[in-house]
Amino acid sequence: MPEITPIKFNDGKLLLLDQTLLPNEERYIEIATKEDIWEAIYNLRVRGAPAIGIAAAYGIYVVARDIEADDFELFKVKFCEIKEYLESARPTAVNLFWALARMEKKLLELSDKPINEIKKTLFAEAEKIRLEDESACLAMGKYGLSLLKPGMGILTHCNAGTIATAKYGTCLSPLYLGREKGYNFRVFADETRPLLQGARLTAWELSKAGIDVTLICDNMASIVMKNGWVDAVLVGCDRMAANGDGANKIGTSGVSILAKEYGIPFYMFAPTSTIDLSTPTGSEIEIELRSEEEIYRMWYKSDMAPSGTKAYNPAFDVTEAKYITAVVTEKGIVYPPYGENLKKVLKGK
Amino acid sequence: MPEITPIKFNDGKLLLLDQTLLPNEERYIEIATKEDIWEAIYNLRVRGAPAIGIAAAYGIYVVARDIEADDFELFKVKFCEIKEYLESARPTAVNLFWALARMEKKLLELSDKPINEIKKTLFAEAEKIRLEDESACLAMGKYGLSLLKPGMGILTHCNAGTIATAKYGTCLSPLYLGREKGYNFRVFADETRPLLQGARLTAWELSKAGIDVTLICDNMASIVMKNGWVDAVLVGCDRMAANGDGANKIGTSGVSILAKEYGIPFYMFAPTSTIDLSTPTGSEIEIELRSEEEIYRMWYKSDMAPSGTKAYNPAFDVTEAKYITAVVTEKGIVYPPYGENLKKVLKGK
Repeated sequence: MPEITPIKFNDGKLLLLDQTLLPNEERYIEIATKEDIWEAIYNLRVRGAPAIGIAAAYGIYVVARDIEADDFELFKVKFCEIKEYLESARPTAVNLFWALARMEKKLLELSDKPINEIKKTLFAEAEKIRLEDESACLAMGKYGLSLLKPGMGILTHCNAGTIATAKYGTCLSPLYLGREKGYNFRVFADETRPLLQGARLTAWELSKAGIDVTLICDNMASIVMKNGWVDAVLVGCDRMAANGDGANKIGTSGVSILAKEYGIPFYMFAPTSTIDLSTPTGSEIEIELRSEEEIYRMWYKSDMAPSGTKAYNPAFDVTEAKYITAVVTEKGIVYPPYGENLKKVLKGK
Repeated sequence: MPEITPIKFNDGKLLLLDQTLLPNEERYIEIATKEDIWEAIYNLRVRGAPAIGIAAAYGIYVVARDIEADDFELFKVKFCEIKEYLESARPTAVNLFWALARMEKKLLELSDKPINEIKKTLFAEAEKIRLEDESACLAMGKYGLSLLKPGMGILTHCNAGTIATAKYGTCLSPLYLGREKGYNFRVFADETRPLLQGARLTAWELSKAGIDVTLICDNMASIVMKNGWVDAVLVGCDRMAANGDGANKIGTSGVSILAKEYGIPFYMFAPTSTIDLSTPTGSEIEIELRSEEEIYRMWYKSDMAPSGTKAYNPAFDVTEAKYITAVVTEKGIVYPPYGENLKKVLKGK
């Protein structure tokens, strides 16, 4: 396991590893206001569906801690204002909404408690969300590893690793657990344009853990698969609809189609907090559109395309359920038909 | 048509538009030595299969012009040394070999001529190669346009446009001809990592011509197709094997698989100079591997991935014939079975 903690709570301070500075600098930023947390989520200083949820839970606690209110109703109104504001940071990953809703639910259970105790309990709930995510990632790692064999070639897209979660990662978790058992995986990391999470984050954390990783451009997945170098594709998930369609980082759907064409199993790792049964299919998932500049300018000394070039920059796409070999959750591996089987796993059956 | 001439011969000087500086600067570099031409081809200052062939033809003339030899045999030996050196610049595009072989063939026809006349005839042959390419591109444009309708959404990968040829381009040629007829195409240009030919070159030349172009990252082709925005995929070709397998810029094979999955026709534009019947299938095409640094460092202020990250950086991949709806050549449109029909078109039948 790489020794990295993406979200820290030390001496009453919420600290986030600023992932936009990686791999060049490991710097933590302090989150003190609701604008701080919104900005950190919007600008991907913290990213990855589970980590966004955890950061939002701690974040709403940190902001709510400063609410000056003597009675529950006033506290609740102010809490809900913060919640609504934070929800506007990113629309696609359901964990943001899930974690904030869970914090609100906890609050609503505490209407007869003094404000100080409410604040303490909210902190405890954020801690619980983080620890549950850590356990879920460990469980997904064990289930995921049961699908893999030593020596396998693995392709992954974007970063669903340690820094996208509390610890271990979702789809990278089996690679870390495998590494501990001496499995010699060979990992191909799609660089994942435009923000290069694969290059900057996945290559970085896998290297730190001593795992053999080869960086490729996104458009090289086809040749790498054709070369026979990929035995399984492992990806994360930002929101899974009830029918098994899974929104994940832009480009994931293309990888799933290539995997199907080349006969390679495609596994999507979705903690149950990511499965949204209230969304019937992928078509109903809102896809965040981000700035065109991310495509033609980011990090470049000079423009990568003519100034003013029109660009289309969706941050996610939807992988249709038919391309997903299995969904790995912390409660077990789910196979098609997803419509039935996702419900079963959520009910713990 | 955008007013761009990628290869100029003025006052006895060979000038190449340095495509590595685009879109920020339009600068021509003079080619005077064999090292100049090798470097320009290797470093993609001139690129695109047809343009490489034309530049190599003029280039070998410019270098051969300075050969000091009184007799044919000595001239030939020196000519062949230059030819062999230039052939080592890039292995995949067959036009480099084709154009140099054609110049050599012309030379061998002139064994009884004085050296001065040989030099003039070599120049005339280079001019002929350029003008033939211009005609071929115009013809491919007309054939290609017959496959398209006004208002269509077109996706293209890399740059097979004006600056990849003498004029018009191969797969962009129908877009320019359509534009003249008032066809309002909507073009999606894959940025084409790692060297961003789609962003820097295709978006640039289509914009110059007033064509509606939207830049996307390579991994967005799937969502753009799924959105129903693409009616046809047009790509160039660097070498087509006898069975119709076509090597083209890395990522093309992935696009072809997505197009098939989404039911979108996929057209590969291959002037007959690109069709190599001596190569039976795509498996026998040598794929150029380029520097890993191109992936993790080029143009960036800071590293895009951890220093020393291993990368795999093939410059091309092979699109299997089964994914190619039709091959557009200057002699007509070729449909499967390619094994038979490519031979026919090469024989002019």
